[in-house]
Amino acid sequence: MSVRPPAGFRDFPPEVMLLRKKVIKKIEEIFQRYGYDPIDTPTIEYWDVLKGKYGEEAEKKLIWRFKDVWSGREYAFRYDLTVPLARFVALHRDMPLPFKRYHIGPVWRHEEPQRGRYREFYQCDADVVGSPYPDADAEIINITIDVMKAFNFSQFTVRVNDRRMLRGIFEEELGIENPYPVYVVIDKLDKIGMNGVLNQLGEMLPRDKVEKIADIISVRGEPLELLDEVSRKYGDNPSVKQAVNHLSEMFDLIDDLGNVALDLSLVRGLDYYTGPIFETVVEKPRIGSLTGGGRYDGLIGIFSGVDIPATGTSIGIERLIDAGLELGIFKLDRKTVTQIYVVVLDEKAKKEAWKLAHQLRTHGFKVSVDLSRRKPDKQRKHAKRLDIPVLIYVGKKEVEQGTATIYLRKQQKRIEVPRENLPQELEKHL
Amino acid sequence: MSVRPPAGFRDFPPEVMLLRKKVIKKIEEIFQRYGYDPIDTPTIEYWDVLKGKYGEEAEKKLIWRFKDVWSGREYAFRYDLTVPLARFVALHRDMPLPFKRYHIGPVWRHEEPQRGRYREFYQCDADVVGSPYPDADAEIINITIDVMKAFNFSQFTVRVNDRRMLRGIFEEELGIENPYPVYVVIDKLDKIGMNGVLNQLGEMLPRDKVEKIADIISVRGEPLELLDEVSRKYGDNPSVKQAVNHLSEMFDLIDDLGNVALDLSLVRGLDYYTGPIFETVVEKPRIGSLTGGGRYDGLIGIFSGVDIPATGTSIGIERLIDAGLELGIFKLDRKTVTQIYVVVLDEKAKKEAWKLAHQLRTHGFKVSVDLSRRKPDKQRKHAKRLDIPVLIYVGKKEVEQGTATIYLRKQQKRIEVPRENLPQELEKHL
Repeated sequence: MSVRPPAGFRDFPPEVMLLRKKVIKKIEEIFQRYGYDPIDTPTIEYWDVLKGKYGEEAEKKLIWRFKDVWSGREYAFRYDLTVPLARFVALHRDMPLPFKRYHIGPVWRHEEPQRGRYREFYQCDADVVGSPYPDADAEIINITIDVMKAFNFSQFTVRVNDRRMLRGIFEEELGIENPYPVYVVIDKLDKIGMNGVLNQLGEMLPRDKVEKIADIISVRGEPLELLDEVSRKYGDNPSVKQAVNHLSEMFDLIDDLGNVALDLSLVRGLDYYTGPIFETVVEKPRIGSLTGGGRYDGLIGIFSGVDIPATGTSIGIERLIDAGLELGIFKLDRKTVTQIYVVVLDEKAKKEAWKLAHQLRTHGFKVSVDLSRRKPDKQRKHAKRLDIPVLIYVGKKEVEQGTATIYLRKQQKRIEVPRENLPQELEKHL
Repeated sequence: MSVRPPAGFRDFPPEVMLLRKKVIKKIEEIFQRYGYDPIDTPTIEYWDVLKGKYGEEAEKKLIWRFKDVWSGREYAFRYDLTVPLARFVALHRDMPLPFKRYHIGPVWRHEEPQRGRYREFYQCDADVVGSPYPDADAEIINITIDVMKAFNFSQFTVRVNDRRMLRGIFEEELGIENPYPVYVVIDKLDKIGMNGVLNQLGEMLPRDKVEKIADIISVRGEPLELLDEVSRKYGDNPSVKQAVNHLSEMFDLIDDLGNVALDLSLVRGLDYYTGPIFETVVEKPRIGSLTGGGRYDGLIGIFSGVDIPATGTSIGIERLIDAGLELGIFKLDRKTVTQIYVVVLDEKAKKEAWKLAHQLRTHGFKVSVDLSRRKPDKQRKHAKRLDIPVLIYVGKKEVEQGTATIYLRKQQKRIEVPRENLPQELEKHL
């Protein structure tokens, strides 16, 4: 019997968990500051809830499906947090709209396990349900920028495009009837480079069209200028015009366009997007997008029968943490939450030591005591291995005198204080 | 296509999530105050990790197993957080012992869905790995008592028994060779009452033994006195003696025995317990146990090859919340985290309103603005439906004068303040 977690799954020991919790807490704080409320949905859904929502690759290879042994019913692990939201909204039609929710939790994909690619990983999603306006998209991008700034990622870019713009240009302007195979090739730009993309397109399309596409997907940079350029070139196309108007109003409500770029090569893989799409990349390390999202005005309607517009983003905390660790923004430097270790010097002082620990806990301190009846020296070593900053010694002398001896490990400083002053004294050092 | 979650699974809308998060946060705080550190393990395990650990009923009926469609490999959803901990410890042999960990997350059981019984539900576990001493069990019970008191459950009892005591009395004293079928019957005491238990035992055992069992399982109440009584009656039995000594030292380290009872009818279902076992019940409502745990000194050894003693408890937050709601301890009274709703009185004031919202967010306030281009009256109604306490009006007048108008919904009070004083003014009311 193997003691490893299943391939593609991970155990998180305390030092990793403490970092993950810190990162999640910060993201959650930002979501809440924008008035987004938490929801949760089940780990698994009936298969027919997920079926037909994500596109061919997801459906054939990536969604984890299984049949219940007892009932024969088909289930699937949730693949993202967006389709479950759509089902949720269709069921809870009494929610006041716009409904702004966040959802933080694991999703599952049947990927080939490899470095940095997991079968179970967390997503942190914020979505607005019920507003068709650019205001909602702008808020989602403002949230994205706030998150990236909160973690001190300096060199990041929120790339923006619009599915209607893509469709208008490719379908109507270039006369490419089904542009999806073209999108699939463009989507590989980061991996295979511009030459790679053009070579692959050359196998599918005549040379003049490939050259035009090369032109189009080179449009990336300062959003307002480039939007003007797109408008001049393709603005007669009604689909492009609609997108340009939407993006223009959206850009106007973004707090800081300094980290935003219009990028006509942005495609994004999922089927359900209908309007603006966006993702965040960092220059270093080259790790793919850290956030991704867009508008999906048709998805909820599949469940509710009535179209309800929606937009949102997903923060990929696995990559965010990997990138932050590589850049030195995050550190795995905390082994425990414990702030104080009470060292029992004498078995007879134990009950007094436990009382003291209990008293400090009611003051909100995080306190450990020996549970293994070890000698004082072994207790001290244990506290050191866990890097607990403060030790308190309790022995016969301390019990008799009603005192406690504080030892600050980093400063190598010893302080003896009366028991009643202990909480105040500790607050100075913690 | 159904828009309901799978049978036995639940969606949590914001008002439920906000309560759940509050409850979990409080439990987590208590765990951390005792120096317990968070870990996480995968949702699913290989089937052979769970196999043979929980007993027949779990294995045959309750563990959700499934076969991977692609690899044919057998997986199972985690059934509790204890067996995954055992596997984790066996894999991470470098953790300093004792290792005190908490783990909060969902577990899955293939129950028949019914009121109050779910297929996916949360457990909050705290365990000590590496100490064979009563000190560790005592700390776990102290934590349990702290949790129950933190939620103001006044009428609760932590029932305590010991598997070695049960074995000593039933196997050796009563000469019942395999006492497990007897335990199964005793375990139904809460459901079928004493007469029911005795009737069922009567079908398995001679009358004198049934009478003796009736005697034994009536022992419940003040722990120290009853421990003496057990010791007098059965203390010559080495297994009972061991348990009495362990429990006696354990009781000595419990901060407050007022809510603790020794209860020889406590059996607990899981196979892996080896020493003290404990659970918490409340008098009202009759809802079963809110916490349950015990010592399992043999479980980790199955994975690691070396026996590593462990003890711990699981707080069942689903029942805790249900009980708390029924007793009026908890309320589903918050619909949103939003504290402030900025009402845009005039489309031209929108950008200024968004700036103001952004400014307040950097001060840590939770602020919503209209995303649906609604008239002021509709915005106000939306804020009211969500019960947001503070409104801020921003219109032409406010923009021109550099002011903002605060409206406190509950007090029905209107305050006009200069923009720069806004954060300080709001802090008075939130």
